[in-house]
Amino acid sequence: MKPKFKVIAGSIVAPKGFTTAGVCCDIKRLGTGKGSDKGRKRDLALLVSEVPATVAGMFTTNQVCAAPVKVCIERVKRGTARAVVMNSGNANACTGRQGMEDAREMVRFTERALNLPAGSVLAGSTGRIGVALPMDNIRAGILEAAVGLGSTARHADQAAEAIMTSDTRPKQIAVRFRLGGKEVRIGGICKGAGMIQPRMSADGKRPAAGPLHATMLCFITTDAAIEARTLQAALREATAQSFNRITVDGDTSTNDTVLVLANGLAGNKRFQILNSKFQIFQAALNHVCLELAGMIVRDGEGVSRCVTVRVHGAKSAADADGAARAVANSALVKTSWHGGDPNWGRIIDALGYSPATVVEEKVDVGYSAPGGGRILWSLRRGQPTRATFRQLCAAVAEKEFDLHVRLNLGNAGAVIYAADLTAEYVEFNKGDVTDPGSLGG
Amino acid sequence: MKPKFKVIAGSIVAPKGFTTAGVCCDIKRLGTGKGSDKGRKRDLALLVSEVPATVAGMFTTNQVCAAPVKVCIERVKRGTARAVVMNSGNANACTGRQGMEDAREMVRFTERALNLPAGSVLAGSTGRIGVALPMDNIRAGILEAAVGLGSTARHADQAAEAIMTSDTRPKQIAVRFRLGGKEVRIGGICKGAGMIQPRMSADGKRPAAGPLHATMLCFITTDAAIEARTLQAALREATAQSFNRITVDGDTSTNDTVLVLANGLAGNKRFQILNSKFQIFQAALNHVCLELAGMIVRDGEGVSRCVTVRVHGAKSAADADGAARAVANSALVKTSWHGGDPNWGRIIDALGYSPATVVEEKVDVGYSAPGGGRILWSLRRGQPTRATFRQLCAAVAEKEFDLHVRLNLGNAGAVIYAADLTAEYVEFNKGDVTDPGSLGG
Repeated sequence: MKPKFKVIAGSIVAPKGFTTAGVCCDIKRLGTGKGSDKGRKRDLALLVSEVPATVAGMFTTNQVCAAPVKVCIERVKRGTARAVVMNSGNANACTGRQGMEDAREMVRFTERALNLPAGSVLAGSTGRIGVALPMDNIRAGILEAAVGLGSTARHADQAAEAIMTSDTRPKQIAVRFRLGGKEVRIGGICKGAGMIQPRMSADGKRPAAGPLHATMLCFITTDAAIEARTLQAALREATAQSFNRITVDGDTSTNDTVLVLANGLAGNKRFQILNSKFQIFQAALNHVCLELAGMIVRDGEGVSRCVTVRVHGAKSAADADGAARAVANSALVKTSWHGGDPNWGRIIDALGYSPATVVEEKVDVGYSAPGGGRILWSLRRGQPTRATFRQLCAAVAEKEFDLHVRLNLGNAGAVIYAADLTAEYVEFNKGDVTDPGSLGG
Repeated sequence: MKPKFKVIAGSIVAPKGFTTAGVCCDIKRLGTGKGSDKGRKRDLALLVSEVPATVAGMFTTNQVCAAPVKVCIERVKRGTARAVVMNSGNANACTGRQGMEDAREMVRFTERALNLPAGSVLAGSTGRIGVALPMDNIRAGILEAAVGLGSTARHADQAAEAIMTSDTRPKQIAVRFRLGGKEVRIGGICKGAGMIQPRMSADGKRPAAGPLHATMLCFITTDAAIEARTLQAALREATAQSFNRITVDGDTSTNDTVLVLANGLAGNKRFQILNSKFQIFQAALNHVCLELAGMIVRDGEGVSRCVTVRVHGAKSAADADGAARAVANSALVKTSWHGGDPNWGRIIDALGYSPATVVEEKVDVGYSAPGGGRILWSLRRGQPTRATFRQLCAAVAEKEFDLHVRLNLGNAGAVIYAADLTAEYVEFNKGDVTDPGSLGG
């Protein structure tokens, strides 16, 4: 089936009626303790809809949850918003009462600067943990951004830059598609790099399934007309098959946030969940989220190889997910991926200690090109196949490949988009003890 | 309280009536594909009691369980044994029916070589996964070891060497103590290095608590007279506070095994569980296991720092254990330890996504010298203390330190003996794709 949407330029300002700006207010410089003008980087952005937008959000299920996340969870419940203020360099996490006051001041100050109604601004922060937001810088940044708002691709680039932390490049996408005779657009920006295994929910509460495991931030705009509840259902589904299926290092951040603003300026007729128009919208939103999620994995700290772990034949969805995450987060499996070593012994070991039911004599393990194609099996029914070591090495030598695991015990499956573990990751994250600014996550 | 035992030389042959030998039969050389005599290393050992011994064992709970482990689980149930045959270079894991036949042949061949009754020999293997045991080498090794048995410290050294894989040094200890007027000895050897987060049980079955997470092998001898059930109870307790509380890389092996042989030659009167003599024996066995477990962590692959994570004030024992393991296995926490970076943001992040109930505003995090002393708090009730960055750096600059976490929600506690994550670990484990011998775990 041909996708019903087309990838276009403009990211978050591709949809009608949105403006943005990304500025430098020296939050990052404070973070690094560097005093000179060299290395000044954008670290605050605004994203504004010219009319009220319906809103939906997904948030970290980490019990230690940053102040801006708490503010968003409260405000998204209202169902509408006008703008988002976002910063990098400081996560405003583990900052106690002061942190909550600062997060509220950040959104209120934005409301005043943009002359928006109370309660209509959302926030997202990423960077150091445990240090109070430098509010003078934040206020100066908001004022500068408010006068710099625009809707060119350059404006979007600068906003995407302003939310980067250890990211090496900005991450953005937009698509357009037809919906009931009208042209609709969805755009998004995101950031990732480390502390990446998002498992978000709509209210920040953990599902009964148990422990959850990035700072990732993602801000999505659309000019679709869609009710808040419908938008939330679509975002939950899109997140479930994208951001909540990636892992770089298995650490779940205190700040993970995905927000969507839908301002209705495309002029389509509102649609109900599960009708054909919803499905078109869902498919486009899924594509935006999955592409952005893929960018996060590929640009993860020190990442040299991306592996899609596809588990089939598990007894239950929880088993499939647990098996895939055990493989995707195993230090030994990840280092073998880095080395281009087709080490199935470590894979079956990880399956064996995963929470999933696994029967050694039933497990198949194989490799293919990303997204499909012929599978080269290294293990069938728990036993090595005749695939040669050279053939297997060739399969895992690619920068991206799929790992197929068949448990052959049931019908449930799961996919996890994973990364390898490299010496660069370790070197990057061991910190710089000559610099207190390296404190935090 | 003064310990009631004294550390002595001789390791596994310190107790009366045990002999051992460690030889080279080229299993490791096969593993590396190297044809020359250079680098020949011991890779097979025998341990023999001159009289029947009571026996107890603890085994990996990985669902993918090596053939020698299956053989041991069957045989330990009989309660008595005479000898153990052990090899490195090949784990005999994921080797199917052939693997079971080979494991049985390995113990039967040892019985014949030593002229012991059927069913009286146990086995332990470590090394490559998924490759059939080279049985000709194994048989030749058993015959050579059988004629080389002895009870000098040199014999024990050679046995300890023969079970090494990526270990950089042999690991052994012995203690002696008085028990009812008699002198009793306990000795042990072990190996570890990578794939280290043992969570063993007596029957290899998982406890209800859920997923479990090394290859470690440990062989303990004692000349105490003790019934098999009493010995099993003592070993379960000793393992619970030692081997089952360590993690190097969070990966649980297919081969983890601890065996104890007690031959009664000390001549003490047999004792019951929980009486004072049992407690003396338990304390000595605990010491042996904890010392050996510590050696495994310190010699873990690439390890530069060892950290004892002490969680207090959890709501339940499972919460305490889950919180401690989340911190101990977090890639970001482990890399910060490597860098000597007192990054509490990553610690509280890991606590927040752990399965434990955690309330940010209640968490205390601090550091002390190993085993106690003044705690330098970096976080009290979720907020940074006045400890300076320099003070905190000094606390985590030591090669070994304790990390104290107080959740302040209940009365349960847990200790995990953990290691940092280094670029050396990654380099070592990324494998050598020019060498098929690197396949396996």
